[in-house]
Amino acid sequence: MNQFYQKDIISIKDFDKNSLETIFSATDKIMQLDPSDRREICKGKTLGYLFYEPSTRTRLSFDAAMASVGGNSLGISNMSSSSTQKGESLADTVRVMSIYSDVLVLRHTLDGSSRFAAEVSEKPVINAGSGTEEHPTQAIQDLFTIKKEKRKIDGLKIGIVGDLKYGRTVYSLLYGLGNYDVDVHLISPESLKIRSDSVYEIKKRLDFAESTDITETIDEFDVLYVTRIQKERFPDEEEYLKVKGSYVVGLDLIKQMKDDAIILHPLPRIDEISADVDKTKNAKYFEQAEYGKYTRAAILGLILNENGF
Amino acid sequence: MNQFYQKDIISIKDFDKNSLETIFSATDKIMQLDPSDRREICKGKTLGYLFYEPSTRTRLSFDAAMASVGGNSLGISNMSSSSTQKGESLADTVRVMSIYSDVLVLRHTLDGSSRFAAEVSEKPVINAGSGTEEHPTQAIQDLFTIKKEKRKIDGLKIGIVGDLKYGRTVYSLLYGLGNYDVDVHLISPESLKIRSDSVYEIKKRLDFAESTDITETIDEFDVLYVTRIQKERFPDEEEYLKVKGSYVVGLDLIKQMKDDAIILHPLPRIDEISADVDKTKNAKYFEQAEYGKYTRAAILGLILNENGF
Amino acid sequence: MNQFYQKDIISIKDFDKNSLETIFSATDKIMQLDPSDRREICKGKTLGYLFYEPSTRTRLSFDAAMASVGGNSLGISNMSSSSTQKGESLADTVRVMSIYSDVLVLRHTLDGSSRFAAEVSEKPVINAGSGTEEHPTQAIQDLFTIKKEKRKIDGLKIGIVGDLKYGRTVYSLLYGLGNYDVDVHLISPESLKIRSDSVYEIKKRLDFAESTDITETIDEFDVLYVTRIQKERFPDEEEYLKVKGSYVVGLDLIKQMKDDAIILHPLPRIDEISADVDKTKNAKYFEQAEYGKYTRAAILGLILNENGF
Repeated sequence: MNQFYQKDIISIKDFDKNSLETIFSATDKIMQLDPSDRREICKGKTLGYLFYEPSTRTRLSFDAAMASVGGNSLGISNMSSSSTQKGESLADTVRVMSIYSDVLVLRHTLDGSSRFAAEVSEKPVINAGSGTEEHPTQAIQDLFTIKKEKRKIDGLKIGIVGDLKYGRTVYSLLYGLGNYDVDVHLISPESLKIRSDSVYEIKKRLDFAESTDITETIDEFDVLYVTRIQKERFPDEEEYLKVKGSYVVGLDLIKQMKDDAIILHPLPRIDEISADVDKTKNAKYFEQAEYGKYTRAAILGLILNENGF
Repeated sequence: MNQFYQKDIISIKDFDKNSLETIFSATDKIMQLDPSDRREICKGKTLGYLFYEPSTRTRLSFDAAMASVGGNSLGISNMSSSSTQKGESLADTVRVMSIYSDVLVLRHTLDGSSRFAAEVSEKPVINAGSGTEEHPTQAIQDLFTIKKEKRKIDGLKIGIVGDLKYGRTVYSLLYGLGNYDVDVHLISPESLKIRSDSVYEIKKRLDFAESTDITETIDEFDVLYVTRIQKERFPDEEEYLKVKGSYVVGLDLIKQMKDDAIILHPLPRIDEISADVDKTKNAKYFEQAEYGKYTRAAILGLILNENGF
Repeated sequence: MNQFYQKDIISIKDFDKNSLETIFSATDKIMQLDPSDRREICKGKTLGYLFYEPSTRTRLSFDAAMASVGGNSLGISNMSSSSTQKGESLADTVRVMSIYSDVLVLRHTLDGSSRFAAEVSEKPVINAGSGTEEHPTQAIQDLFTIKKEKRKIDGLKIGIVGDLKYGRTVYSLLYGLGNYDVDVHLISPESLKIRSDSVYEIKKRLDFAESTDITETIDEFDVLYVTRIQKERFPDEEEYLKVKGSYVVGLDLIKQMKDDAIILHPLPRIDEISADVDKTKNAKYFEQAEYGKYTRAAILGLILNENGF
């Protein structure tokens, strides 16, 4: 029996190197399969999604992933405008959705929501982003992209730049990287530094440096992970405008980078990376989006097939 | 040819005991089938839905039902925000949706809307709730749940509690119960008593008592059907607050019930049933939700297959 | 290899008679196929849609078309309320959607949007309406309907009535008709005449007369194409009310028409055609909606199958 069969995917903290590598191998296999064979993996299975916080990108990635392995999707893409609200508890909504589906995908604003959902759900729950720190499938997608494009993760020097305070992607990625021997450098404006309490635990396993100036170390990175400075995360628009343009990655910056460095971004981007970077061989964020579809397909396939695929 | 082939499901009043039992048998068969055989029943068929009144729960139940028998669903989940509005008549919208699909599912605020839709539609129409009284597939789901959990319907004593004035579920259930030899007790606050004009006809076939106090007869019920006191149905919030907590079903009440009594609820619930009741063996409302998926799957299968399945 | 394989459908101006006839033949074939054979054509393929301008009708037509040939659909039906917005560029949204799907369907307010999308997309793009003039699949649907119902297009006298200024359907239809030897008559109020700059090019190939009075020539038409006077296109409501009822097609008008004339309408209609016309043998607008499903299915099938089907 494969270790993910009928299991929940709640937190990236639950993954060790071995379990990550299992998913990576399954992803490789999915990508190599003929589409018609691929569609046998979750044939006739139903993914149910509940998005308490809208996220078109993540929802479509799961939907496309499920379609690629032959399953279908149904659910609620915007709970705030849904009639299901009417005061119903999360527990009840999850229970009923778990009756309608074989696996549940949940996005919720609160920390711990997925763990709670998994306890009441009759079916496995996948956390598609919760609270301020957890987005495990994004982290898996990011790690897989690094491995695929750099052919390894251990030994790499990785820069992470942008809004490190409000972006849950970054926290999940850091915990994921904690399984590898990497040198991490965090670059952000003072007001958007990573929350130290949130990375207290990871510091034991992963050394990272922090700075505010991207140019200092740009020539050393094998991977530059760029995040959006999300306007909606700022209590104050002036504060936003002040830092908005701080870390725009353009061709000038690319020239200072290692020739084979790769640039990642969880998308959507606004102007953190200028459009002319897209055509460089370093830009790998659209590949990253594609890998996201296949890592999610692999996760679904492992959860829904006792003996893997 | 099965009697439901290409037929509309408009009103629970159109059903007799025999036709209900046909659906129950088909539901039993659906539940026993291997999932891959089940998916052959409506393979490649399309369900088109038109929800003029949002109802996420009912829509997802149909969507999940159709997926379980191998079909797919498309449609409009919220007509009020849809571009199709633009002043188009119900008749035209129904006609076009019936071109895009093999069976039409309609939820509409007006009484008689489904009957009208069935006349203009090129495909069978299923009423997924209309006006103040009709919700036939919910009644079928409720009756099937009673039969499945109590192994019979005839001879049972059934309490129905909560908002009996505004909940269309209750009216449909009463008309459905009219086909059986049951003893029905309706319990509600004075202001939420059943509308006597709406049950005038059913009174000929079904005797029911009315009271305001749930404790009087709680020890006699084989089935307790609890309904939500829907805030949005009240013209006045104060009136709502006054009756809101009147009939909360908790462990105390359970203790007064027959040991093998079952508790049903059409869901969503707010606090009419306390969460600690969920774990009792009497609570059957989540089973009810699951049966809803399969009764709808059976209905779809019968409508779309000349010789049944 | 068929000429549409992996090609974009951007503008009706890109079509000549030969390419139109190829789609018509493919549509005929789709309509004759057994449903289960039909579902093999795009089996397992995914259509991704992006609607920057809501259009339930067109979206459902594509969704139903894709389902009829065995594929599935996913996407964003209302970009204005989508989280994908967040300032993301059209190019990025298109790129990512093209990763999630095998063919992209785009509706956008701006002229040239589809051409642009096709350049950045990794997958073929179908224009589902853009700007003020382009709606190529609607024009193909309209032309196919004429051919199917009149058994030819060449030699027909075609009246087009209603809002000719704001309806993009009419512009696309005129360019499509430019491939045939037809006699076109445009009838509209002065304020809603066709924009002469937009038909400058088509005038070289297609002669058309213009008038404001529908009764003058009504007895000569083989085809009467009626369009809605769209309230939302008017800057001024009074102007709308003035012309609203000008060209209502009723039984009186039908009596003046050729016995075998057909009446078309892209739908939705409000009151441009009175409901009692629906039952006449001349009314073909619901057939037109059905042909729309099959022409789109044919287009999808040709784009996604190297050797046609």
